[in-house]
Parts: sequence; structure tokens; C-alpha cells
Amino acid sequence: MLLSIIYIIGITAEAMTGALSAGRKNMDWFGVMLVASATAIGGGSVRDILLGHFPLTWVQHPEYLLITCVAGIVTTLLAKWVIKFHGVFIRLDALGLAAFSIIGCQVGINMGLHYSICIVSAIVTGVFGGLLRDLICRQAPLVLHNELYASVALVVAVLYLAILHFGFSDLTATVSALVVGYLLRMASVRFKWRLPSFQLTVEESSSLKH
Amino acid sequence: MLLSIIYIIGITAEAMTGALSAGRKNMDWFGVMLVASATAIGGGSVRDILLGHFPLTWVQHPEYLLITCVAGIVTTLLAKWVIKFHGVFIRLDALGLAAFSIIGCQVGINMGLHYSICIVSAIVTGVFGGLLRDLICRQAPLVLHNELYASVALVVAVLYLAILHFGFSDLTATVSALVVGYLLRMASVRFKWRLPSFQLTVEESSSLKH
Amino acid sequence: MLLSIIYIIGITAEAMTGALSAGRKNMDWFGVMLVASATAIGGGSVRDILLGHFPLTWVQHPEYLLITCVAGIVTTLLAKWVIKFHGVFIRLDALGLAAFSIIGCQVGINMGLHYSICIVSAIVTGVFGGLLRDLICRQAPLVLHNELYASVALVVAVLYLAILHFGFSDLTATVSALVVGYLLRMASVRFKWRLPSFQLTVEESSSLKH
Repeated sequence: MLLSIIYIIGITAEAMTGALSAGRKNMDWFGVMLVASATAIGGGSVRDILLGHFPLTWVQHPEYLLITCVAGIVTTLLAKWVIKFHGVFIRLDALGLAAFSIIGCQVGINMGLHYSICIVSAIVTGVFGGLLRDLICRQAPLVLHNELYASVALVVAVLYLAILHFGFSDLTATVSALVVGYLLRMASVRFKWRLPSFQLTVEESSSLKH
Repeated sequence: MLLSIIYIIGITAEAMTGALSAGRKNMDWFGVMLVASATAIGGGSVRDILLGHFPLTWVQHPEYLLITCVAGIVTTLLAKWVIKFHGVFIRLDALGLAAFSIIGCQVGINMGLHYSICIVSAIVTGVFGGLLRDLICRQAPLVLHNELYASVALVVAVLYLAILHFGFSDLTATVSALVVGYLLRMASVRFKWRLPSFQLTVEESSSLKH
Repeated sequence: MLLSIIYIIGITAEAMTGALSAGRKNMDWFGVMLVASATAIGGGSVRDILLGHFPLTWVQHPEYLLITCVAGIVTTLLAKWVIKFHGVFIRLDALGLAAFSIIGCQVGINMGLHYSICIVSAIVTGVFGGLLRDLICRQAPLVLHNELYASVALVVAVLYLAILHFGFSDLTATVSALVVGYLLRMASVRFKWRLPSFQLTVEESSSLKH
């Protein structure tokens, strides 16, 4: 229940930031709705397709798709407001990331999958929305370069699974993972924490054709 | 039956225009067949994957895949002819778009899905072939910028569902939706009708990191 | 058994060359693991999704995903070594391509699909890993431009199916297809064999809006 509310807040916030990316590419309203929806519910869709978990969430709950499309169009009208309150969206996105990761984890658990795949499921749910957005908008995928994102999903998933494993209630696990995930994401934005990156210069790899 | 014939004409025309995109990127014959097939039957494939509607059409009917591959290779030999009769292909594409949308709608209906998801199914069938083509060819997705395309699929789907809903025969619904879809698409090409676009300048969004 | 060993060698080699692509784009460790895994096991995943063949291999065998992630990270530490022994990786990739194609064929056969779809399944398994890598790394898809790749998968699949068809054992078919596939790929790299390409100049297609 708590998770459902945060999920809806999360997809709304994600859809609105996704719509801004579409705006930067001068897309039409259909493009805005597509990018908004892909950003918000694309991660869960990729997860469900990879796991063979049908029907997809939005096929069963078309209202989620309606929310993301409306949020996208509203953003075209309120773009300045959305940009001005960017800090709020960073926070909502952090909360959404934690919620998406927990939901991804739960899908894996309910399907009886190996713990490691539950963690992968959490990461895919949290990360692939942003990847799809950047793919459709033809821009470098932010989540592969910037502040901790996939790592937050990983920590959330491991924490959630560990707390459940030690016999605590689902509520305890959910709240703990939400709080830690939110704080970790906000701290990584604040302090610009990043994963080490792998930089291969073109000269180094010049002997490579493939 | 009528729809099957138009479907085959549609995928042939789509495959040939897809092959031209591959040619502009100097792809080899395999690339030509891939882009031709993705353009022609990629939309239906994405729809079936999103809806969990297996087996995909071309897995059950490999002859469709054969048609798109042959149409692609034939285009490499007849490129000048295809370009010269561009107007014919615009018409065939408009007819194909209407047919694809109706077929997408029917898949949703047969799966017992909510009306709104049947409409989404129609749009995905009509639009995602072109999106995949532009993704593989690394060019800006036309359907998110240009003349009405997704909107035509939407109108076709709503009209088709409405006519069925009021108790008319499937043939009546199909023919009406085909005619209206074709005319709407041709009019939007002729008069350059477009959806409003969302233009966000880089300055406006300069405060955004994400 | 033989095929399993070659499969594991193949995904390790593919993951390592995939990681180099991520390095050329300065991706972080998550990006490296993503690109490494997509390159190595993305082809099989796309195949399984297109055929509705669930669960995906790595969902059932998470150890394969672990191998590709570890291979990716190891590559960030040993990049110079990997580049130096590039010739070895070309050979392992050729062997992997043949093995992936045979496995793709077998999946199709076990699902009772039409021969032509078994061949498509082989090609998708062999080719789509590299396509996904180039898509995520935002570079021109090599397999649509360069030396024979999809064609090797095609020949391997046809040969494998033909040998089985004439009543020989699976081992005979596998070994023959592996050897021929390896030699054909290496010869095409050595002698720069390519498919004919379709070159459409912008002038020729200037009358096209779409």
C-alpha cells in the first residue's frame, strides 16, 4: 500500500523529467507521451519481458499508462515550473528509484527466482527506464556515466532481501530499504559519488578493428 | 481476407522504404534485410512481446519474413525505381498503417484486453516499425517529429472499436477504419498536419543536470 | 558438453571485447558490466524473447551472468593485455559465433519450429549481442557493415540442420558446423570478405521526405 503510493508518485515524477528530455529534442506530443511512459514504466516492462512475467503491469493496470501520458503532456504546459522545482524532482526520483528496486525484487521473489536474479530484477527496474529514455532521445546514457544509480538499486535490493531473510516483516524491509535507498541516492547526487569509470583512449585501442 | 491482402501489400511497401534507409547508411545485404524486416514486421513484434502474445506472427508464418527480406534485396536492385515512384509508396504506407492498426486492435480484442490497451496495441503496431528502423539506422525518429502517424493509428483504432461496439459487422468496421485512416494519413502528408511539438531550449533547461 | 565449454569460453571472450567498447565510451563499472553482458548473452536473450522461450538462459543459470560481469570488470584491469592479444580474441569470437549459432538452431529445433525459423534463431543468437553493444555504445553497428558475420551464422545453421537431416549424429553435426563456421569466419576476417553493400547517395534519395 505504502509502496503503491510511492510507486505512483515515482512514475509521475519520472514521466515529467522524461518529458523534459523529449522537449529538448523538440518532439511532438506523441513523442512526449512515449518518452514519458518509457522513462516511468519502461524499466518495469523490460524486467517483465526478460523474466517472462506476463501480463506487464500497465497492460493489467492501464491507469498507470494514463498517468504517465497525462504527466508528460502536463509537463509541456508547466515546463518552467518543473525546471524551477528541479530539486523536488531529484528527491522524488530518488524515492521512486528505491520503490522501483523493491518492487523489482518482489517480482523476482514471487516468481521463485534465485536471489541473484531478484537483485538483477531490481536493477533492471530501477535503471532501464532512464536507458530507454536516452536511447529514444539519442543521448549518452546518463546512468552509465553519472552519480550512483544502478548501485543504489543494488544496495536497496540486497538490504531488502537480507532483512526478509533474517525473518523481519515485509514492512520493516520495505521501509528500511526505502530510507537507505533514498539517502544513498541523495548523498551520491550531493557529493557526486560515482563508480570508477573505465577509460580507454582511442590510441590504446587503435590496434583493434573490432 | 481483405485485411490479409492489405497486410501483405503493407509489409512489402514498408520493407522497401526500410531498405532505402539501410542504403543511405551503406549497409550490407544482411543490414538491408534486417532493417527491411524491422520496419515492416517490427511493430507487430514489439506489440506481441509487450502483450505476451506468443508465438510472434512471423514465427508462425515464416513466409512473411521471407517477403520482407526479398523485398529488401529487390530494393537494392530497383532503388531508382522505388525512389521515382515514391508517391505510390506513400499511399501504400498509408494503407499499411491503417491495416496494421486494425490488426493490432484485433489482437488486443482477441486477448480480452481493456479497450485502452487495444488502442495502445494499435499504435504500437503502426508506429514501432518506423521507430526500430530509425534506431538501427541511427537517425532521429521520424514518427516523433513529423506528420500525423501515431494519431492516425489512434483514430483508426477508436473508430474500429466504436463501430464494433455499436453492433456493426467486422467488415463494416474494417473498411470504414481503413478508408478513414488512409484519408487522414494522406491529408496530413498533403497539408503537413502535425501534432503540437514541445520545444525546450537548452537555456531554459540549463539548470538541469539530469 | 563440448558445446557448453565452448559456450562459456565464447561468452567470456565476447564480454571482454564488449567491455573494451564500454571503455572507449568512458563508462563506469556498471556500464562495463552491462555492455559486457549484453554483448555476450544479449543475442541469446533477444532470441528467447522473440521465440517466447522462457525462462531466459541466464535467469535459469545466473552463473553465466556472473561470468560476463566478472569478465567485464577484469577487462578494466587487464585492458592492455586484452588489446595486445587481440588476435586470440578474434579466434575465440569466431569459435563463439559458431557455437552460439548451433545453440540457437537447437533451441528452434527443440521448440518444434520451422527450419527457416531455426536458421533465423541461429542468426539472431550470433548477431544481436554485437548489435546491442553498438546500440548501447552509440556506434555504427559493425555487423551490418563489416566482414561476414550473419552469413557465417547462416552457413553454420544450414550445415548443422542438413547433417542432422541426413541422419548423422548430433556430435558429427556440431563438430562439422563448429569447424566450418570457425574457418569461414577466420577466412572472412583474413581476406576481408564482405557481403555486397547497398549504397544510396543522398542525391539519389533527395526526392524522399520519408
